[in-house]
Amino acid sequence: MKMKFVALAVSAALLSGCNDDDTKTVEVIKEVEVVKEVVKEVPPTPVTSVKNVILMIGDGMGPQQVGLLEEYAQRAPNSVYKDKNNQTALSKFANAGHLGLSLNAPHGPSGSLVTDSACSATQLATGISAGSEMIGLDTQGNKVATILEKAKAMGKATGLVSDTRITHATPAAFASHQPHRSYEDKIAAELISSGNVDVMLSGGARVFLPQDVATNEAVQKQLEELGMPSGVYKKSKRKDSDNLVVQAQDQYGYALAFDKTQLMNVEGDKLLGLFANSGMDDGIAYRKCQQENSCTQPSLKEMTVKALDILAKDEDGFFLMIEGGQIDWAGHANDAGWMLNELLKFDEAVEAVHEWVKDRNDTLVVVTADHETGSFGFSYSDHNTPEAVALPGDGMGDSLYKPKFNFGALSLLDTLYNQEGTFYDIMGDVDGDYNFANSSAEQWQTAITKHTPYTVTLEQAATIHESHEINDDGHPLPHFEDFSDFYVYGTEDFTGKIARVVATQQNVVWGTGTHTAAPVPVYAFGPEGVTKQFSTLQHHVDIANKMMAALGVDE
Amino acid sequence: MKMKFVALAVSAALLSGCNDDDTKTVEVIKEVEVVKEVVKEVPPTPVTSVKNVILMIGDGMGPQQVGLLEEYAQRAPNSVYKDKNNQTALSKFANAGHLGLSLNAPHGPSGSLVTDSACSATQLATGISAGSEMIGLDTQGNKVATILEKAKAMGKATGLVSDTRITHATPAAFASHQPHRSYEDKIAAELISSGNVDVMLSGGARVFLPQDVATNEAVQKQLEELGMPSGVYKKSKRKDSDNLVVQAQDQYGYALAFDKTQLMNVEGDKLLGLFANSGMDDGIAYRKCQQENSCTQPSLKEMTVKALDILAKDEDGFFLMIEGGQIDWAGHANDAGWMLNELLKFDEAVEAVHEWVKDRNDTLVVVTADHETGSFGFSYSDHNTPEAVALPGDGMGDSLYKPKFNFGALSLLDTLYNQEGTFYDIMGDVDGDYNFANSSAEQWQTAITKHTPYTVTLEQAATIHESHEINDDGHPLPHFEDFSDFYVYGTEDFTGKIARVVATQQNVVWGTGTHTAAPVPVYAFGPEGVTKQFSTLQHHVDIANKMMAALGVDE
Repeated sequence: MKMKFVALAVSAALLSGCNDDDTKTVEVIKEVEVVKEVVKEVPPTPVTSVKNVILMIGDGMGPQQVGLLEEYAQRAPNSVYKDKNNQTALSKFANAGHLGLSLNAPHGPSGSLVTDSACSATQLATGISAGSEMIGLDTQGNKVATILEKAKAMGKATGLVSDTRITHATPAAFASHQPHRSYEDKIAAELISSGNVDVMLSGGARVFLPQDVATNEAVQKQLEELGMPSGVYKKSKRKDSDNLVVQAQDQYGYALAFDKTQLMNVEGDKLLGLFANSGMDDGIAYRKCQQENSCTQPSLKEMTVKALDILAKDEDGFFLMIEGGQIDWAGHANDAGWMLNELLKFDEAVEAVHEWVKDRNDTLVVVTADHETGSFGFSYSDHNTPEAVALPGDGMGDSLYKPKFNFGALSLLDTLYNQEGTFYDIMGDVDGDYNFANSSAEQWQTAITKHTPYTVTLEQAATIHESHEINDDGHPLPHFEDFSDFYVYGTEDFTGKIARVVATQQNVVWGTGTHTAAPVPVYAFGPEGVTKQFSTLQHHVDIANKMMAALGVDE
Repeated sequence: MKMKFVALAVSAALLSGCNDDDTKTVEVIKEVEVVKEVVKEVPPTPVTSVKNVILMIGDGMGPQQVGLLEEYAQRAPNSVYKDKNNQTALSKFANAGHLGLSLNAPHGPSGSLVTDSACSATQLATGISAGSEMIGLDTQGNKVATILEKAKAMGKATGLVSDTRITHATPAAFASHQPHRSYEDKIAAELISSGNVDVMLSGGARVFLPQDVATNEAVQKQLEELGMPSGVYKKSKRKDSDNLVVQAQDQYGYALAFDKTQLMNVEGDKLLGLFANSGMDDGIAYRKCQQENSCTQPSLKEMTVKALDILAKDEDGFFLMIEGGQIDWAGHANDAGWMLNELLKFDEAVEAVHEWVKDRNDTLVVVTADHETGSFGFSYSDHNTPEAVALPGDGMGDSLYKPKFNFGALSLLDTLYNQEGTFYDIMGDVDGDYNFANSSAEQWQTAITKHTPYTVTLEQAATIHESHEINDDGHPLPHFEDFSDFYVYGTEDFTGKIARVVATQQNVVWGTGTHTAAPVPVYAFGPEGVTKQFSTLQHHVDIANKMMAALGVDE
C-alpha cells in the first residue's frame, strides 16, 4: 500500500511539472490530493505477529466468577470501582480487544470431561492433548516443550508469577515436566536448574528448603542472612537436605527476594522471589493489610509490575504467565466472599498489565481461566420473598408488583466484599488442629459470626457440626447429602457446609467441591490481526497454538 | 469511498482530454489506473446496518449448556454430528462471526442479582431496565415499545417462534405488556389483536380456547373443522368463553395451522400455528418420533424455516425471534440427558438459520440465552476412580499414570443423548397424579430403570421416596438437604432428587432448581461492522440497543 501511495505522489509531481496553468490539471491535482487522503485512511495490512505474549490465568475463573466480579464492580452500592467508572480491568481488555470462550477438558478422543489445573495448564502451555494431573507431558507421558521454553529458545525473556506456590500446577506446567502435580520438590529443582525461567515470583518456599529447616539453626541463620523471614522458612516439604534457594543464587545466578521491600529493591535479569512458605496471603487478608498499610508480602499486582520491569528489558521480547491462583481455592471452599476478594486481587494485576500494554501494538495479552471451580452461581430462592408494591406505570392495571421469588439484592455484593475472614479462618477458629469431632454448634456459630456478617442459628450451625462422620483414619468429615462424591477433600470440605448455612443470605449456590467443565472466558488484547481469532468457542489447545503462532515460535 | 473513486475516474477523463500527447500525462494516467486498482482493494466502509434481525434465544442456555452441546458434538463416541465434521451450527456462527458474553440480571442500580425469563426477554426486547416477572414493562410498570413493535412500525414483517407456548414469558415479552408473566390469557389476546406479529408458531392453545372447551362439543366440532387435533384442544386455561383461535382467523386475518402437515401447506402472510395444548414435545420425545418418522408436531427447525419463508417475502425486511425454550425446563428439572436433547433440537433450528443467512450481508443473527438454569456442570468426583496404568513416555520416570479422581468418560455423552425419557416421565410413571405420598422405592427404581440407562439401588431410590415431606396442602414434597430454598417448584422438584441419585454415573452436578446469574454466550453473525461490537462482556440491554441500532429503529 505504501508503495502505491508513493507512486501517486510522484504522479502529482509529474503533473504539476507538466501543465501548471491548465485549470483541468489543477482540478486533477486536487483530485489526487483527495485520493491521498483516502489512501491514508486505508487500514494497514493486519499485524499477525507480536514480540511479547502475556498470559494471565485466573485459576477457577469461569464465566460465573467473571460475572460476580462485573456485577460487583458495576452495581455494588459501595463498589471499589466507583472511582474507575465502575469498570474492571478485564472489561477494558474486553472492550478494546476481543472476548471468546474456551473448552478446557483433557483434549482429544482419549480425553475426559473435566480437567484439573495441571492438565489444563499443560494444554495451555503446549497446544497438545494432556492427561489428568500430569505436568508438561502429553497423554503418553512424553515431555513436551512449552511456549515458555520455546520463547526462551528464541532468545526471549521468560517469567512466571503466581499468588499460590511457584511449584503449583499452573506455573509448574509452563516450565517443568513431571508425571504428577504433587511432585513439587522435583518441580522446584527443575524450575531453577533448567535455565528457562528468568523471573519466578510466588509462594512455595517449603519445597526449596532442606527437610530439617524447621530445626536446623545453621540453615535458618543462612536463610536469614539472605533476608528470608522466619514465616517463609518455617517448614519444609523436601525429603532431602538440598537448599534450592542457595543453589538458585550460587549455581544458577538468581537474585533473591523474600518480602515486598526486597522485591522493590532487587536488581538483575534473573530473579527468584519466594514470599510465603506455602500459598501467599489470601484475598481477604490482602484487602485488610492493604487497608491498614501493613502488607509485608508483595501483591499479585506488584509482582506483575516487577516481572514486566525486568522482562521488558530484553530486546528480543518475552513470555510472561501470571496466575491469580486462589480464585480456585475459594471456589473449592465454596466461599463466595473470599472468591470476590480474589477476583479483585487478580483484576489489580490485570490493570497493571493493561497500563503497561494499552498503547503498544507488539504484545498479545490473553486472560483466561484453566477451568471453573465450584459450579458457582447467584440464584433465586423462595426465602424472604419481596412484599407487593404498587407501581405507577400504565401497564400495571389493577395489579401490584409482586415477584414470587427472591432474586437477590445488590447490597449482597458489598456484603461479600466486606467478609472479614475466609471459611478456612472459621474452621481454624473452631479447631486449629482441624479435628472437629469435639467441636460444638456454639463454636461454629461464634466463628461464623466473627468472620462473616451472616446470622446463623444454633440449629443451622448444628448442621455443620452434627452431620460429620468419622472416616477410616478416625478423622471427622463433613457429611453432604447432595453430590457428596463431589466433595473430595476431606476435612477441608467443612467449608462447603458453611456455604450451605449462609446460602440464602447470599443468594449463592454451589454444585461441587471440585471443578466443572464450563467453557471459560478468553480476553484477547493486542493487534486486531492477532486477537480477532479468539472471538469464538475454541479449546485451550487452540489458545496455545494461536499464542505460539503470534509469537512466531515453532509449533 | 465510492464517490471518491468516481472522482478519480473523472480526473483521468479530464486529464486525457487535456494533453493527450504529453508523455508525462500518459504516465500520470497510468498512475491513476494504478490508484484505481488500489482503491478497489480498499475494504468498503463497514456495513453498520442491516435489513433483517434474527434473534435466537436458548432459554437457560448458559456457557455450561453450550459446553455440553460442544463436548457432545465434538467428542461423543457416537456423536450425531459425526457426518458434519463434529461441528455444531452454533460453532459455525462463532467461527464466521463473533462470540461474546452477556450479563442478564435485572439491570440498573434498582435491579437484582438474578433474572427470570420475563425480565430477561423484556430487557432483550426493549434495551431498558425491567423488573422481575413483568412482560414488556419498565421498572415502573410502564409499557415500552419492543424491537418487534418498532420493526413493525417501520413496515417490516415480524415473527415469534417457540417450542414452549407462544404466551410463555420469552415470546410474550416481544409483543405484549402485562404486569405478570402468569397472565397468559391476556397475553394471548394481546398477541393476536395488536397487529404487530405476522407469524406466531408455538404451543399454548389452552389460553386461546374458551374455558369449557373440554366439554363443549359445539366448540370442539368447530375446532376440528379448523383442523385442530383433540390433543391440542383438550383443556382451557381461559376464564371466559372467548375463542381466540376463531378470532385470530375471522377478525385479525391469520391463517391457522395445528400440526406439522398443516404448517407445511398453509399459505398467507399472517400465520398463527398452535401445535400443542401447553408446551410442545420435549427434546427426547422429538428425537424418538424423528427416529420413527412419526412426528405430528413440527420441529423447532421446521417452524423456523416456515417463519423465514413467510417473513423473507417482505421487501422491507423482518424481525424474527426464535426460542429453544425447553433447555430451561430441563435445567429446572436437573435433567442433563433431556437438556442435551433440547440443545440438539435448538441447534437444528440454528442450522436452518445458518443455511438461510450464511451468504447474506443484510441480516444480523444474534444467538444468546436469557439466563443459565440449574448451575449445571460436568464435575470430577472420587467415585469409581481410575486404575493406575503404565505410560511409555520419557517423562514418567518410575511413576504410573494414576489420577486421584474420576474426571468423566466421554462415553457418558452418548449415554446422556440416548436417555429414553425425561425425569418428568419417570415421575409420571411413579404416580401420574403427582402425589408421591404412597409411592415406593421400588416404583422409583423401576421407573428410573425404564427411562434411563442408570443403575439405581433400592437404597438410592429410597432417598427420593422416603425423604419427602408433606406440605401445608397435604402434598408430598421432595426434601433437599443442601440449598433447599433454591428448589421452589414443589412436587416438580422430585426431578432434582433423581438427579442426585444418578449424579456419579453422569459426572454431573447441579447447584439449584432455579436460575443463575452466569453471563451467557452471545453469538453474532452478519456484517463485521455490526457484529464486532458483540465480542465483549455486555449486558442484555446493550444487546437490544445494538440490534435496534443495526436495524435502524428509533431507540
